[in-house]
Amino acid sequence: MEIRQLNENYKKYIDQEIEINGWVKNNRNSGNVGFIDFSDGTSFKGVQLVYTKDLDDFEKISKLRVGSALNIKGIVNESVGGKQDFEVNVSSVNLEGDCPEDYPIQPKRHTREFLRENAYLRPRTNLFNAVFRVRSLAAHAVHEYFQTNGFIYFNAPIITASDCEGAGEMFQVTTLDLERVAKSGKVDYSRDFFGKPAGLTVSGQLEAETYAMAFSKVYTFGPTFRAENSNTTSHLAEFWMIEPEMAFCDLEQDMDIMEGMLKYVIQYVLDHAKDEMNFLDSFVEKGLIEKLTKLVNSEFVRIDHEEVINILQKADVKWQFEPKQGEDIAKEHEKYITEYFNGPVFIKNWPKDIKAFYMKQNPDGKTVGAVDLEVPGVGELMGGSQREENYDKLVNRMKELNMDPDSMDWYLNLRKYGTCTHSGFGMGFERLVMYLTGVENIRDVIPYYRTPGNCDY
Amino acid sequence: MEIRQLNENYKKYIDQEIEINGWVKNNRNSGNVGFIDFSDGTSFKGVQLVYTKDLDDFEKISKLRVGSALNIKGIVNESVGGKQDFEVNVSSVNLEGDCPEDYPIQPKRHTREFLRENAYLRPRTNLFNAVFRVRSLAAHAVHEYFQTNGFIYFNAPIITASDCEGAGEMFQVTTLDLERVAKSGKVDYSRDFFGKPAGLTVSGQLEAETYAMAFSKVYTFGPTFRAENSNTTSHLAEFWMIEPEMAFCDLEQDMDIMEGMLKYVIQYVLDHAKDEMNFLDSFVEKGLIEKLTKLVNSEFVRIDHEEVINILQKADVKWQFEPKQGEDIAKEHEKYITEYFNGPVFIKNWPKDIKAFYMKQNPDGKTVGAVDLEVPGVGELMGGSQREENYDKLVNRMKELNMDPDSMDWYLNLRKYGTCTHSGFGMGFERLVMYLTGVENIRDVIPYYRTPGNCDY
Repeated sequence: MEIRQLNENYKKYIDQEIEINGWVKNNRNSGNVGFIDFSDGTSFKGVQLVYTKDLDDFEKISKLRVGSALNIKGIVNESVGGKQDFEVNVSSVNLEGDCPEDYPIQPKRHTREFLRENAYLRPRTNLFNAVFRVRSLAAHAVHEYFQTNGFIYFNAPIITASDCEGAGEMFQVTTLDLERVAKSGKVDYSRDFFGKPAGLTVSGQLEAETYAMAFSKVYTFGPTFRAENSNTTSHLAEFWMIEPEMAFCDLEQDMDIMEGMLKYVIQYVLDHAKDEMNFLDSFVEKGLIEKLTKLVNSEFVRIDHEEVINILQKADVKWQFEPKQGEDIAKEHEKYITEYFNGPVFIKNWPKDIKAFYMKQNPDGKTVGAVDLEVPGVGELMGGSQREENYDKLVNRMKELNMDPDSMDWYLNLRKYGTCTHSGFGMGFERLVMYLTGVENIRDVIPYYRTPGNCDY
Repeated sequence: MEIRQLNENYKKYIDQEIEINGWVKNNRNSGNVGFIDFSDGTSFKGVQLVYTKDLDDFEKISKLRVGSALNIKGIVNESVGGKQDFEVNVSSVNLEGDCPEDYPIQPKRHTREFLRENAYLRPRTNLFNAVFRVRSLAAHAVHEYFQTNGFIYFNAPIITASDCEGAGEMFQVTTLDLERVAKSGKVDYSRDFFGKPAGLTVSGQLEAETYAMAFSKVYTFGPTFRAENSNTTSHLAEFWMIEPEMAFCDLEQDMDIMEGMLKYVIQYVLDHAKDEMNFLDSFVEKGLIEKLTKLVNSEFVRIDHEEVINILQKADVKWQFEPKQGEDIAKEHEKYITEYFNGPVFIKNWPKDIKAFYMKQNPDGKTVGAVDLEVPGVGELMGGSQREENYDKLVNRMKELNMDPDSMDWYLNLRKYGTCTHSGFGMGFERLVMYLTGVENIRDVIPYYRTPGNCDY
């Protein structure tokens, strides 16, 4: 049986012999009786195995090393006064896979850097067991939220010939033999797999819009890529993103969904990962559970960018970057404004010139219907906008930005063929997992991170 | 409100005024009364709008074109003798987005080829509305099955420096400027993003194994890539794959999970997409629902490859490819064997030389613990194996195949640090959607397909 099942229903098995598999996390003995911390990873909590001198192979068992894989038979007993509710009195042990003395994961504190260098072993530690279990539950909660609310899961293409943000930070995808390109002295795309240059998607939004105009409500959840040369604790070259897109939906309704989804996912994790969250609260971020519970119960403030700048300018603070109307806000401003309102803040109606071409142009001619969600302690967690639904306005904006409308005729045609008010947003999944777990380096919330110079496994 | 909600609970709204948004699918009138087939895509079934001469703008409404986006107010009425249970008597219409006469999606039969060329509009048709709703539900069912059974969702890396199958059909990922490579006459990987060659994953299995050795049960569900120059109806360069991996799990238990998952997903779709499945049964594959129901209720046969060859050799059939012991089986053999057993067949214990290096070497020295699931009408739907857990055997096999063990030390180390019996399998998600919907071309079950020469949107 799985240890998960035993932990959930141990009372059912008291005095019975059970069979479990797993790995030794720790093994210590006092000469007459020994204890093994034993886990198969199916639940955060393991099981305590007790073995005594009565066993013929007591000596052999007492020498079992950390990391070894065992098949165990034993009797379940209620624990008296221990840290755990029950323990398993071992009747037989089969060593399935040994583990050498120099096994890197020992029952002691390892630095995050050391574990990052041994990324394939780190899920065997308590910390990463908790983090990646939370990640898995959060992913499922995202699907549950959208599926229950009538959204269609849409798989945006990963390899693409279009570039959503109009920016150039795309990885190129090719089957050309680069050595041959170098030798021949020319790049012949007619020999490339797609017959033209192609790259990895930076966002599935534009494609998601095409499906929103058929199903009304869709969401993506897939990998996205930025070939950005940033070595920070919050950037990855490969990350997972959730991008919902809704027809007949304005900016206010967009914010309703952003808020509803975030609260649902957080509550789901609090409900389904109690042991993990208690561990993270104790060892990673003190007050984590309180922080998350508070967010679920708060009402998110909704305020215009212009008003935010007014508040910042009136604040009695010496800013590193002076807040200005019509300009972006800095990290220090984000921090101030969430503290000012003591909770999450939707900042909406941003200056047009610092936002993307597809955003809804407001009647004032200066702002667009964009929104960022700022959350205490983490800053921007999601960004969205109402999309410009007017064909002419969209084409004009593209021309102003020196974009070529012809290359995006399919996107523009959505505004010809039954256009409507529509909105959407994007959330970086790893940022969410950082917020949920308190882990401060984004490299520690994705199994195998890709950053400049790093592509192991 | 959404039409989904109205369809689910129309009785609640009889005689009440409701407000709905959506698109005109058809509009016809007899001079005094008109009918609009109206849909917002939130359910497969739309709503019938009825408008009469009593309305001041009857003439205007009667000219509303197919594809236009409308906001409607109207009274819900029980239908008398119509095809639908209820209809909406229009009290007011607001044209939100017009649609031109030459809109490509008209209420008539379009060929699949035409719709493939207009891939961004095809979800607006009944066929693709059904297909992509089934796809979304099937994806959710996959997550539900694994999450309910204690599996951890594991995101395998997409960009990778390792090549699972040892084959060479990988897309390369680079930030090198190819024009500059051509001009300079050399490839300098120290200037590439990762400082070395990198490509798109062909399988997340090896990485999933590292997490199975921590959590016991994990699954991937993500995009995978093959730069294979195949222009067939069953190959894509970019497709989604599900790859579960289980510790303390042998080949028999592996098959239990393969069978359990498949039945769960099929039953889920039958339960949650009744309208869609009825449509597909009527217009795409006659007998589809019966076929799927039969599979859910069947017990899958489990038989050795050797025995399969015996059956094929005894068959009174003139084969195109003669079945031989120790060799692969062809399409015609797959077809025969599922007909022979009149149901799904697990073919297990395959000749070692035609299977991958990581598969469990059987004591006979000739076969490995591999398994393929053959399904009537579709052929191979999943493939899996027990993995070789013995370090020395695995290294020797790699050397036999001229693979470099040093380049995969992390994978091999799993066999040093508490190795155990473990197994896994892979299922191409698009193949499953084809099977579920009866659609015969794989390009028609993924929103934007990538094949040699095709990378639109």
